[in-house]
Amino acid sequence: MSSTWNNGGVKLSVFGESHGKGIGVVLDNIPAGQPIDFEKIKAFMARRAPGNDPTTTARKESDEPEIMSGIHNNKTTGAPICAVIRNSDTHSSDYSQMATLARPGHADYTGFLRYKGFNDVRGSGHFSGRLTAPLVFAGAICGQIIERLGVYVGAHLYSIMDVIDKPMNTVAITRDDILALRQKKFPVIDDQAGEKMREQILAAKHNADSVGAIIECCAVGMPAGIGSPMFDGLENTIASLIFGIPAVKGLEFGAGFGATKMFGSQNNDEFYVDDQGNILTETNYHGGILGGISSGMPISLKVALKPTSSIGIPQRTVNFVKRQNEEIIVKGRHDPCVAVRAVPVVESCVNIALLSQLIDQSALF
Amino acid sequence: MSSTWNNGGVKLSVFGESHGKGIGVVLDNIPAGQPIDFEKIKAFMARRAPGNDPTTTARKESDEPEIMSGIHNNKTTGAPICAVIRNSDTHSSDYSQMATLARPGHADYTGFLRYKGFNDVRGSGHFSGRLTAPLVFAGAICGQIIERLGVYVGAHLYSIMDVIDKPMNTVAITRDDILALRQKKFPVIDDQAGEKMREQILAAKHNADSVGAIIECCAVGMPAGIGSPMFDGLENTIASLIFGIPAVKGLEFGAGFGATKMFGSQNNDEFYVDDQGNILTETNYHGGILGGISSGMPISLKVALKPTSSIGIPQRTVNFVKRQNEEIIVKGRHDPCVAVRAVPVVESCVNIALLSQLIDQSALF
Amino acid sequence: MSSTWNNGGVKLSVFGESHGKGIGVVLDNIPAGQPIDFEKIKAFMARRAPGNDPTTTARKESDEPEIMSGIHNNKTTGAPICAVIRNSDTHSSDYSQMATLARPGHADYTGFLRYKGFNDVRGSGHFSGRLTAPLVFAGAICGQIIERLGVYVGAHLYSIMDVIDKPMNTVAITRDDILALRQKKFPVIDDQAGEKMREQILAAKHNADSVGAIIECCAVGMPAGIGSPMFDGLENTIASLIFGIPAVKGLEFGAGFGATKMFGSQNNDEFYVDDQGNILTETNYHGGILGGISSGMPISLKVALKPTSSIGIPQRTVNFVKRQNEEIIVKGRHDPCVAVRAVPVVESCVNIALLSQLIDQSALF
Amino acid sequence: MSSTWNNGGVKLSVFGESHGKGIGVVLDNIPAGQPIDFEKIKAFMARRAPGNDPTTTARKESDEPEIMSGIHNNKTTGAPICAVIRNSDTHSSDYSQMATLARPGHADYTGFLRYKGFNDVRGSGHFSGRLTAPLVFAGAICGQIIERLGVYVGAHLYSIMDVIDKPMNTVAITRDDILALRQKKFPVIDDQAGEKMREQILAAKHNADSVGAIIECCAVGMPAGIGSPMFDGLENTIASLIFGIPAVKGLEFGAGFGATKMFGSQNNDEFYVDDQGNILTETNYHGGILGGISSGMPISLKVALKPTSSIGIPQRTVNFVKRQNEEIIVKGRHDPCVAVRAVPVVESCVNIALLSQLIDQSALF
Repeated sequence: MSSTWNNGGVKLSVFGESHGKGIGVVLDNIPAGQPIDFEKIKAFMARRAPGNDPTTTARKESDEPEIMSGIHNNKTTGAPICAVIRNSDTHSSDYSQMATLARPGHADYTGFLRYKGFNDVRGSGHFSGRLTAPLVFAGAICGQIIERLGVYVGAHLYSIMDVIDKPMNTVAITRDDILALRQKKFPVIDDQAGEKMREQILAAKHNADSVGAIIECCAVGMPAGIGSPMFDGLENTIASLIFGIPAVKGLEFGAGFGATKMFGSQNNDEFYVDDQGNILTETNYHGGILGGISSGMPISLKVALKPTSSIGIPQRTVNFVKRQNEEIIVKGRHDPCVAVRAVPVVESCVNIALLSQLIDQSALF
Repeated sequence: MSSTWNNGGVKLSVFGESHGKGIGVVLDNIPAGQPIDFEKIKAFMARRAPGNDPTTTARKESDEPEIMSGIHNNKTTGAPICAVIRNSDTHSSDYSQMATLARPGHADYTGFLRYKGFNDVRGSGHFSGRLTAPLVFAGAICGQIIERLGVYVGAHLYSIMDVIDKPMNTVAITRDDILALRQKKFPVIDDQAGEKMREQILAAKHNADSVGAIIECCAVGMPAGIGSPMFDGLENTIASLIFGIPAVKGLEFGAGFGATKMFGSQNNDEFYVDDQGNILTETNYHGGILGGISSGMPISLKVALKPTSSIGIPQRTVNFVKRQNEEIIVKGRHDPCVAVRAVPVVESCVNIALLSQLIDQSALF
Repeated sequence: MSSTWNNGGVKLSVFGESHGKGIGVVLDNIPAGQPIDFEKIKAFMARRAPGNDPTTTARKESDEPEIMSGIHNNKTTGAPICAVIRNSDTHSSDYSQMATLARPGHADYTGFLRYKGFNDVRGSGHFSGRLTAPLVFAGAICGQIIERLGVYVGAHLYSIMDVIDKPMNTVAITRDDILALRQKKFPVIDDQAGEKMREQILAAKHNADSVGAIIECCAVGMPAGIGSPMFDGLENTIASLIFGIPAVKGLEFGAGFGATKMFGSQNNDEFYVDDQGNILTETNYHGGILGGISSGMPISLKVALKPTSSIGIPQRTVNFVKRQNEEIIVKGRHDPCVAVRAVPVVESCVNIALLSQLIDQSALF
Repeated sequence: MSSTWNNGGVKLSVFGESHGKGIGVVLDNIPAGQPIDFEKIKAFMARRAPGNDPTTTARKESDEPEIMSGIHNNKTTGAPICAVIRNSDTHSSDYSQMATLARPGHADYTGFLRYKGFNDVRGSGHFSGRLTAPLVFAGAICGQIIERLGVYVGAHLYSIMDVIDKPMNTVAITRDDILALRQKKFPVIDDQAGEKMREQILAAKHNADSVGAIIECCAVGMPAGIGSPMFDGLENTIASLIFGIPAVKGLEFGAGFGATKMFGSQNNDEFYVDDQGNILTETNYHGGILGGISSGMPISLKVALKPTSSIGIPQRTVNFVKRQNEEIIVKGRHDPCVAVRAVPVVESCVNIALLSQLIDQSALF
């Protein structure tokens, strides 16, 4: 298993299991002397924390990261940053089935094969969505650094089932639009759409069922010319992190799948020079990335998260040790829609990817 | 710039520029003693070659790879495999504008910034879709190796505009289905849908315009238990290659974005044990991957390719050296739909990713 | 800064600063199901701990690693293993000069430049020899795993100044020889030589001075055929870790520098087949590695460690902030010979390197 | 097998087998716009070429690299640089024994195990010293780039058997000293010592025997503050390349193994500020590297190369296929001392390592 990400300037190693002593992250190769605001980290992580809203799990996680290294006097020291979050409030008894019964949609069976039955299955172990907490810590650090360079990343719930939020304006979105989004308790642009989404989620919850969502994310202020063609492009780098979020099953940039319904003459974004001499595009179907390299337009992406796999409805499944058919009712307190809390996780992945590329490319030459 | 991929067992380095001496690939860490059938490589690469069909560019590329190293007596030696494809039939004069005028949808402007004007712009240089030829060579090698392990990868044009091919049966697809697809001159399952797609492409071509497409791909025979959670999952590994294909703007696994329109109770694939004791799922919305690890079900993915950026219609753009507004008509002979020739490129990325994971995980323990 | 090692099957990330909250390590991609004996880890780490002997610093470090993840029921789970060692018994006031005065032989000045003055200088921060504690934890884990495969690694003090221990028999050394060495309080083969070394160290200590040493290390039981030519050879892999030990200034394999005093006819190790059909060499000047690949003979190496840089004798130096000449007397309690405690650190690097190569090469094919 | 080096800013992939179609290298992530002087490359590579001197093999290699990509109009384009050197003048019949008889000191037996008998054994295949030709090409490119930043790297034969050249002045060596060395037909500082070395080599040759050597190398002009503690230090990075040179068995920095014969008070290099305000050290036992980071003093290292393994004297060995004892006389035309031609190879490794670190560390922050 490798939860080490080593895809550019930033190096990341996420560790932990849901019901072990603790979870955490090592974030390496971060420039020295970067001011870190712990209140901002706390606020950022709070957006991912459970229990904020009736639409999320009632499970409590204190999720207070303890900084082991790499930050001194509120500044990065240049040494690897390690943060540990201790586990608590665990109901291990809820999870006793997992060692033998495959919860549909979960990694119980595949994890059993991969780790020959030795993985810690309690609370899904290393597969748990809880592992996104240290990822969000890392994203909070990286976010503070890129914001001082003028790069701001924000995301919202784009859709849940057929309810669609007001889309981001991928041509004209501003830093202030992003800052406003962060204040929202429920992460949508249009609160009325948000209210309908909450109804969808609560209806699913009432039925012991769950829903997925599409999250839309934009980054503004990314300087043009950052990235690379082929395997180290912005898209590859972002994708290699985004698909590390459990439940993600799709990712698109700019017009994405929608581009396949347009002619080239529609999808091509025409360039123009504005009054200040800036080179811009009229539309932004390319999502701010051409040839793997930032164009200076907002970077835009959408992420598809499947419905929470843990549902309270009886499902057919197998005992993978005895290899026999069974029925399962998944117990425990679960988010009826993991996407609500995944919004800052998506932002974190983009923060990390963009900082990584910026560090990588600040050329001496 | 980094066109080196180093994401697991297989190491890959793609080099070349469209109008330089040659393009090619180094494929490292391939096990020794693997038989290589050069006729099969040739047949595989021919599927990507231009000029096969009126829907593709009339441009000719001989694309004969010369093996420099790593294969001896038709077997891999264990040393890095290098193949070089010499460039020929180039019309450099067609491309003289690129040094100053940004073709909409292309990387002319972003490449200019990234490489400070020193990149070889002729024929799009290192950004050219021509660089997928060595990628397909690498995919052909990796494909032959995984096929001896029983893993077969096939893809088809899933849709062009509103025309949809018969979808792959992601639950019951067989090796024979995949082998049948490879024989198709136009890569679709339903030839009638194919005929309509060809009409769409030719209509776009007639208008000097272009169209995109969705490519669907499946892998059968992948053993269960291969992959990892978080950053080295099958999804991340595949994504890090797929987004290396120029024109790709979206990627989804299994139900993908469609999963966001289902309840958990619909999207969860229920497990069952069949008569032979195999553990299978009734449906395959998870695309054969759970927690980044193969489940034993067919691996399924869809890739969105935008319409060809090169179109013959006048477009507004900028001279990025003088920073002034201009108009451009892109000359040259171009595919009205790059996706037709991209089908084996998608297969190649999946071949490489799966071999890489298989090598990585063949545990001593 | 990057303290992430990603050079093969094993991934390693060391974090921490001498006087921060804690230090530790993440060890990733370790196979699941490996039994871990905590008493053995403790015993292994105790060999590096200070205060065991009058020749080492009087400073106390409890160095009790807390396992955060990756081990459950005394077996590896396959998830990243994280261990944290909390810092204690720190005398921060001893180190106040370091922010401006360069201790000769230390990284105060180079660290100041590298981290622009933001590095945590207390106790040398991330440059501290204390960071070898988590490295030894990682080495203890890897050592237990390779020992179950029959590979045993042992080291001793080969020389201090002109005192030379009995050399290892690099042709015929056995597992039992290595196990016997581990029992030694002072890590030498010949206790009389050891007594003379201790005298040398204590004499240097008495003079407020220090001495270096050569450490010799052997691995027995490494299967033949593991490694690679060029950049992933056993020598490169071992070197990339060994030069991570502070104070190491030299490394040689087999006859090493001595090979330059021999003719080819002397230095070439002649092969022979023994009665059991084993292929062996008469001598072992190649140090068990040919073309980067293990030959089946014991792997042998020597490591040169410079004298402890911290000495109590006045030295000329500079204030690198004011850029003026100064004199310094380095305070604090220091080992007069860091090499004594470095013996298990060298073993740890070799343990990690060998496991990494073994994991990497366990081919599916 | 992995001949891909991916240890920092520069990415390197060396390919080829001695008697295949060709050998070469891909050098990736090189900044765009760097002027490349092909005459200088030719001159640099000529220093490694055989047949220059009676002390080297009479074998001829034209070794003309053909640039496939990455250089246009004599400037780097930012795309991967690929150079191919075609093989010629091969006497495959000389090498027929290698498939079964282990030449002592060679990788025939270990390569057979590693590649299960499928490696191309002709001329040692991928293990051949000939593979250093593309490494020297890469080193020539990197050298030209760092020289424009003021960093000059030079090496000489420090010793052959008991004959010692005048050592480099590791405190006061200048760019001009290095440029003067490059003009030498036989790479020594003191031509009289050189004459004695040549006698040693020719005497060994006369006896159908061989000798090794120590190569000393210095880099001047490296800015202070480049490198990292632990695993990405200058020493680790240089070591990971140097141990890729066949025949290298030892490496030391600064005083190296000699440091173990000094007290700390002798080995510590005292700092001082000179009249211009530069921070320097009186001596340079640290070899220009403290804590893995450059100090601004010349970087100095020594490399031990074993005697050429191919000798014309009968040696006992084994047939590793039949597992029986045999005698061997190694045929073919060989260098009696590979170190003579290895001098620019050592320089190349240092050039690549230093450029890699410089690219890596040119911080945005």
